[in-house]
Amino acid sequence: QDFDLATIYVSDAQYNRNIYFDTSPQAVRLYLLYNHWALKVLLYFFILVNLSLAIFEEPALVSLPTWATMLVELLCLLVFTIRLVHYAKVIPREKFWKDPKNICIIVVLLLTLIDMIIYGALKAANLYSVRWSRVLRPLLLINVTEGRQLRRAFRSIRNALPEVSSVFVLFIFSVLMFSLMALKLLSKRRGLKTIEGASYFTNYLEIVFDLYVLVTTANSPDVMMPAYNANSIFALFFILYILVNTYIFMSVFLAVVFNNYKKHLKEEIRQLVRAKRHKMARAFGVLQEQREEGGPPVVSHENWNKLVQQARPDISSAHRELLWRVCDDGNQGFIGKVAFVQLADLLNIEVITLKSRPHPLQSLIPSLYESKPSRLVCRVVQHRGFVITFDLIILVNAVFIGLDEENPLISNSEWVFLALYVLEILLKLYAFEPRAFFSKHSFWNWFDTIVVVAALIATIVNSALKSSGGYTSRQVLDIVFILRVLRLIRVVDSIKRFRAIINTLIRIGPAILTFGQLILVVYYVFAMVGMELFKNKVKFYEDITNPEKAYCGNPLLKGSTFAQLSYCKNNFNNVVSSFILLLELTVVNQWHLLGTGFATVTHKSALIFFVLFHVMVVIIIINIFVAFVLEAFFVEY
Amino acid sequence: QDFDLATIYVSDAQYNRNIYFDTSPQAVRLYLLYNHWALKVLLYFFILVNLSLAIFEEPALVSLPTWATMLVELLCLLVFTIRLVHYAKVIPREKFWKDPKNICIIVVLLLTLIDMIIYGALKAANLYSVRWSRVLRPLLLINVTEGRQLRRAFRSIRNALPEVSSVFVLFIFSVLMFSLMALKLLSKRRGLKTIEGASYFTNYLEIVFDLYVLVTTANSPDVMMPAYNANSIFALFFILYILVNTYIFMSVFLAVVFNNYKKHLKEEIRQLVRAKRHKMARAFGVLQEQREEGGPPVVSHENWNKLVQQARPDISSAHRELLWRVCDDGNQGFIGKVAFVQLADLLNIEVITLKSRPHPLQSLIPSLYESKPSRLVCRVVQHRGFVITFDLIILVNAVFIGLDEENPLISNSEWVFLALYVLEILLKLYAFEPRAFFSKHSFWNWFDTIVVVAALIATIVNSALKSSGGYTSRQVLDIVFILRVLRLIRVVDSIKRFRAIINTLIRIGPAILTFGQLILVVYYVFAMVGMELFKNKVKFYEDITNPEKAYCGNPLLKGSTFAQLSYCKNNFNNVVSSFILLLELTVVNQWHLLGTGFATVTHKSALIFFVLFHVMVVIIIINIFVAFVLEAFFVEY
Ligand code: NA
Repeated sequence: QDFDLATIYVSDAQYNRNIYFDTSPQAVRLYLLYNHWALKVLLYFFILVNLSLAIFEEPALVSLPTWATMLVELLCLLVFTIRLVHYAKVIPREKFWKDPKNICIIVVLLLTLIDMIIYGALKAANLYSVRWSRVLRPLLLINVTEGRQLRRAFRSIRNALPEVSSVFVLFIFSVLMFSLMALKLLSKRRGLKTIEGASYFTNYLEIVFDLYVLVTTANSPDVMMPAYNANSIFALFFILYILVNTYIFMSVFLAVVFNNYKKHLKEEIRQLVRAKRHKMARAFGVLQEQREEGGPPVVSHENWNKLVQQARPDISSAHRELLWRVCDDGNQGFIGKVAFVQLADLLNIEVITLKSRPHPLQSLIPSLYESKPSRLVCRVVQHRGFVITFDLIILVNAVFIGLDEENPLISNSEWVFLALYVLEILLKLYAFEPRAFFSKHSFWNWFDTIVVVAALIATIVNSALKSSGGYTSRQVLDIVFILRVLRLIRVVDSIKRFRAIINTLIRIGPAILTFGQLILVVYYVFAMVGMELFKNKVKFYEDITNPEKAYCGNPLLKGSTFAQLSYCKNNFNNVVSSFILLLELTVVNQWHLLGTGFATVTHKSALIFFVLFHVMVVIIIINIFVAFVLEAFFVEY
Repeated sequence: QDFDLATIYVSDAQYNRNIYFDTSPQAVRLYLLYNHWALKVLLYFFILVNLSLAIFEEPALVSLPTWATMLVELLCLLVFTIRLVHYAKVIPREKFWKDPKNICIIVVLLLTLIDMIIYGALKAANLYSVRWSRVLRPLLLINVTEGRQLRRAFRSIRNALPEVSSVFVLFIFSVLMFSLMALKLLSKRRGLKTIEGASYFTNYLEIVFDLYVLVTTANSPDVMMPAYNANSIFALFFILYILVNTYIFMSVFLAVVFNNYKKHLKEEIRQLVRAKRHKMARAFGVLQEQREEGGPPVVSHENWNKLVQQARPDISSAHRELLWRVCDDGNQGFIGKVAFVQLADLLNIEVITLKSRPHPLQSLIPSLYESKPSRLVCRVVQHRGFVITFDLIILVNAVFIGLDEENPLISNSEWVFLALYVLEILLKLYAFEPRAFFSKHSFWNWFDTIVVVAALIATIVNSALKSSGGYTSRQVLDIVFILRVLRLIRVVDSIKRFRAIINTLIRIGPAILTFGQLILVVYYVFAMVGMELFKNKVKFYEDITNPEKAYCGNPLLKGSTFAQLSYCKNNFNNVVSSFILLLELTVVNQWHLLGTGFATVTHKSALIFFVLFHVMVVIIIINIFVAFVLEAFFVEY
């Protein structure tokens, strides 16, 4: 039982869990269950289901009756409640009620329940009602115990906020001053007109908006053209404006965010290390014994072995022996606290055992495998020329893919290329030990094999479909094309200096997922609000002959740039198109036209929604993302 | 004479000059002359004249006869040659010929001369000729002895190039692969059309260009809309593309540039410090004497005093005494080498002498100045409420400026505000010692006084003009408006946390000028090439009634987006409009439309010019600029 507790402390330290659970036997058992991977997967599955409900709720992509979505949501709430109760049983009561995460989850659950009841009642009475609690759903993603990384990302935003807002106020002051100057210099006295024939730079608030958009560069150079066409000297005003606000202020935002991010990162890492050491000290406290009278407490080799066996049953005894030798460098048969504490980090180090195992064929048919021609094949495959040959084949393949596939010569050549790639994999499997070839770290071997096998299957399915009825499935063909192009990517692995960059990107990958969650949370909230504000104001018609298509089904958009650029599908009519629209706003270009479109069909103040989104996502989150990539690159490269 | 030499070494160390001049008395005298500020100003004046010739040469903003510009250019060449000969006399001959800077200047001068002769001859024979040597002009700016900062900036670009090009090739590979996929997925089989009715994504090279433009976000979301309108699933392709190429690759570019910049900066600073110490050691070598037999060489207080007096005749004897005490902390009457070497840095430290001098009025009319009402006035002015009152007045003024100036109440109020501001300055001059008020470091006092006095003069001139003939000069009025708005900026100085940011920006300022030169060099080269390629292909007509205005005077542009957006003035017809156009390209938005416009009137390959500009300026130089601002901010803030 002591070993159970010590094991838990070690694995908490290993995975940076920071939960002060009760140490009673019952609580420990519950805590083990709480950390079981299946329960975590289940929790994330239900969080995902809860978030996905937006697809089926009004305005829906796929309509489901209200009772169905409500029922699923109730189920989700039930699962979250059970998980929370489980957590409450694991940790001491006063700790539970002191933790804002738990309070937040309880409040979200209660508010959601209240909202559902009100919504149901109003709906039953045929009254207008809004499911406002939907914006709270992403809060669950942040506040579950497993959302550590995400909470850290939000904390780094919160920490950057005071300084960012300082710079932001100064930046807004600068925009307001430039706008005032623009009003005075370019107001109606010049009688300038925009290309739409509207009066140019006459309304102060409109100037402020136009110049804010210019900071994002989205209306450059159009906003300058009327003034510039009137007199070249006005270009100076805009140049100065862009220099100060776009180049200097935006760089200062990045600098402030980056600076805070680094400071915060260091502090977080320091805390993590402290918590880890604390956990390991507790594990040590459980297992320690006194060797000599008055001497320091130690842990014996035997107890240590038992502990590691429980904490990591998957590692081999040879590996365990290696770890022990690292800890007990004096070869005393026991270790002190200092040596014990480093165990958590040692367990996280992946040891790659480079056993030169013989090839299975060598054991099976040694006479054949070690014959002269067989050895020649192995030498050829291991030669640098083999790699170069297949890189050249890939390049030829790339040219063939680019050519017209209607040509029978081209379409038949595909079989030749496929055969060559399959041959390459088979040859490699013949020359190299298969288990080493498919080891965990051989990313490109896995990639290659999966893509080639998938392409083979898809091509066979495609030609079977074709020959059976002369019918070609568009989807299958698309998959074939994608796989063909993916195959070409392999070529970058052959060039050494590319490999370094790609490996850095692959290592950054998992951390980018945290940013994916961060973006998801912000997008979800904006999508929910946006759908309530703008649903069905702008419509997209599949049918080309429909005359309403020209103005997105809203007469207010007649003749607008929004409709002319056929942006009708960029709307808030369901959660998927909302997300795509928000992504377009994140990319920034044309965001003012999208915003103006929705302001036209509702009210000018709708622009606030779009400006707010820009400030939140582009100025803060994207800058944090860039800061993160910069820092990760500095560390890794 | 020894003192002359030592003085030169000290001032070289102080200003980070790194010239190994001859130490013969004649060369030393010439070297002193070479470093004279007047000669430097003259040199930069002629470099500026040489660069400005582009305004008067074909295609000219202001046409001058060819012989006139050629004559001025010859004069410039003469000045540069004299300066170079002067330099050759200062440093040892073998050093001169080993320095690539000098070789570069000689080559540029010779090539320019040859070009001028060829051009003159061809012109005389009425044949077509190009002044190709104009692209070499900015090289002089880089290679003159004083261009140290600029050379450093170019070196940091050169050092970043190998890694940047590595990432760039990978990035281009990614664009090519995505383009191939786009060709396969969206090719003619779907039958999609752009909003202009052209076929969508059918030509590989056009797809590559479109997707390259998408990396810069300039054609988002337009390039996606036809595919997205056909099927929402295609949005996934573009989202993935933007994530990989716009967000990740562009951040990696910044990371690589930033990383190299930091590495390079550290190395440069180390070299500077080394060179400085070397120079000071030489100065020490000149002045050293032996105090004791076998003891270390030292410099006596007397010699040191004489040296400092020569090196910085402007500093007071009290200040000099202070510096000596810092050096000779043992109070021995002489200093060793280590203490002597730090002199260069000590001389660079600005000592602000906070003498509490009495107010001149106090000495002049003490009875009045120290009377009770006078003291009350002083106390009021020094009170925090005084600042707040005037901040409020500024805010009220801002509102008045925003209102319609046709209203007589508003226009008369201007006099009240002016009077208040003048009163404020007079009161401050009464309460504070005027020389302290206008000290070198009181940026805002200077700013305030200059702006208010200029506004006073401009307003008086304006109203004089008005009352004399009822005629209002547009230019004077514009200046009045600009000054009025500038006055408002003062408000940021009252808020402490803004002051910190502003002071950081002001301190970064001078270094940003180096980037100004860097941009000037690159712009100049691109402007010269652009003018040769595109001059007079696109014309701008002031006259609105001219029917050719609708298509920029080039029938090829009929119906093009370029003409529809009235971009006609964005052309390469003179050096000023070229620079403004290049600036628009730097801002990136709509750069593809500008590029396509010029490709339409010449040839598709013209797009190479625009893509090249984007890679050079946006991917490399702007990233260096951001890296510079980030680093400067981290150090200063
Ligand atoms: Na843009």
